[in-house]
Amino acid sequence: MRLRLTPRDTSFFDLLGVTAGHLVTGAQLLAELLGADRPGRKAIAKQLGEVEHAADESTHAIMRRLNQTFVTPFDRDDIYALASALDDCMDDMEEAADLIVLYKVDELPARVSDQVQVLGRAAELTAEAMPRLRAMDGLQDYWIEVNRLENQADKIHRKLIAQLFDEISDPILLMKLKEIVEVLEHAADAFERVANMVETIALKES
Amino acid sequence: MRLRLTPRDTSFFDLLGVTAGHLVTGAQLLAELLGADRPGRKAIAKQLGEVEHAADESTHAIMRRLNQTFVTPFDRDDIYALASALDDCMDDMEEAADLIVLYKVDELPARVSDQVQVLGRAAELTAEAMPRLRAMDGLQDYWIEVNRLENQADKIHRKLIAQLFDEISDPILLMKLKEIVEVLEHAADAFERVANMVETIALKES
Amino acid sequence: MRLRLTPRDTSFFDLLGVTAGHLVTGAQLLAELLGADRPGRKAIAKQLGEVEHAADESTHAIMRRLNQTFVTPFDRDDIYALASALDDCMDDMEEAADLIVLYKVDELPARVSDQVQVLGRAAELTAEAMPRLRAMDGLQDYWIEVNRLENQADKIHRKLIAQLFDEISDPILLMKLKEIVEVLEHAADAFERVANMVETIALKES
Repeated sequence: MRLRLTPRDTSFFDLLGVTAGHLVTGAQLLAELLGADRPGRKAIAKQLGEVEHAADESTHAIMRRLNQTFVTPFDRDDIYALASALDDCMDDMEEAADLIVLYKVDELPARVSDQVQVLGRAAELTAEAMPRLRAMDGLQDYWIEVNRLENQADKIHRKLIAQLFDEISDPILLMKLKEIVEVLEHAADAFERVANMVETIALKES
Repeated sequence: MRLRLTPRDTSFFDLLGVTAGHLVTGAQLLAELLGADRPGRKAIAKQLGEVEHAADESTHAIMRRLNQTFVTPFDRDDIYALASALDDCMDDMEEAADLIVLYKVDELPARVSDQVQVLGRAAELTAEAMPRLRAMDGLQDYWIEVNRLENQADKIHRKLIAQLFDEISDPILLMKLKEIVEVLEHAADAFERVANMVETIALKES
Repeated sequence: MRLRLTPRDTSFFDLLGVTAGHLVTGAQLLAELLGADRPGRKAIAKQLGEVEHAADESTHAIMRRLNQTFVTPFDRDDIYALASALDDCMDDMEEAADLIVLYKVDELPARVSDQVQVLGRAAELTAEAMPRLRAMDGLQDYWIEVNRLENQADKIHRKLIAQLFDEISDPILLMKLKEIVEVLEHAADAFERVANMVETIALKES
């Protein structure tokens, strides 16, 4: 057994895992919201707001601990950036839900569900990966798969934009749908940024 | 009296205070611009451009000094990020003024004045807080209040967006107003980012 | 002759030069695309996608080497930021090309060519500057000129936006053109960010 001379605060991994767990719940709520009616959507968007708030709390807990801990398990700035990037995923998903409610868009193209499904899968992979940062093990499959998912999201997004411009003649409805679709694409980019950061951290530590 | 062994360059606080002072002037000009007629707005937007230029100069002075000073009062990267974030506040306010003139939007909803009023209050609090970085004292009230203001700005913004989509049927006018309102919301976010940075710096130093 | 005791990995300069070289090709393809017909544009956009992919590869090579090299020619974070910023220039140029094809916009205002010409000049200057980072010599002319070009791009952009709102009455066409013009303006900003980073690096080293 190898002895570790400097004890490292492992609770960062737990906290990152908690934040990522909220992303899984967030993506599930977003999928539910798509299938609901207008009052149902309002209620689910409110729930998503509470999950976002909880994720915010765990991000803040990471930041606070970061500023009070002398030895961190890996580079301080990398933990900070990782926590911020997880936060961005949640913000984008909540914003999409908010816009759907605010814009009173009743019908959304089927491909929007495809976007949200990709986000759900990315959230699950991210939540499974965070605890594995402790041993820096089995992370490569994660970042490769999230990059693949982002490519898939990108293709869905491009098709959606082309479809919107082909099919929607009401410019105001077009503006609304385009913005929702773009915020969901930002969420997919945010998950990819998390995966790229994990890759960078793993390369540094190897 | 406690002796300080490493002299620290305190002029960073003065320079940050100067930049933040320009934000107060900028927010005042933006408020004036809203009440003016078209030629008046053009003249005020030009003045705001000059204030933005002056703020840019003081940001550059901070950056230059940062690169030439060995011992900084707190973490070099934090000063850099703080100066950049102050700059973002100004850029967003100037952009809003520019768009109002460029888009020849004569009438703006009353809530736009509410947005600008919140920016003015945030700018004042920021300008008062910068000199207090020297002693790291009395800063908590500042960041709590700016976070509260950002929440208020966010609520005004959401109501404004809903109002625009409810009341404006001309899609091109809607595009213009939506963009102006969003740039003002970005300015409120930028002030919150400054406050969050000050919080982080204070936590590190405590 | 002055001896250097710590050998520094100079291949970073070569890799940055390779990435910047792709930007020159990218800007040339973008200019060609403007003059082509619809099928020609599609083919050129595909080529641009391949150049973007090649630039991505050289950026990744920089990142990988960065994580495996102990002594870097200048601050590790600065190399990282510089490589990312070069990547942003390419992403924006590719996005503009993609949007022109995706939106099936046949006619573009003449000023769009002016925007692309400025990008081409900025790309050339950037590619010439990267190898000069080795000796930190003759860089001032580069960053001053790129800042001047960004100012010029900004003026063209503002005139273009005013022109679009004056001349285009179809709101959907306006949305398309506005977005293309804005992405090109982001590309000019990205080149300025690269130049500002080079300035910061040069000041630190002086």
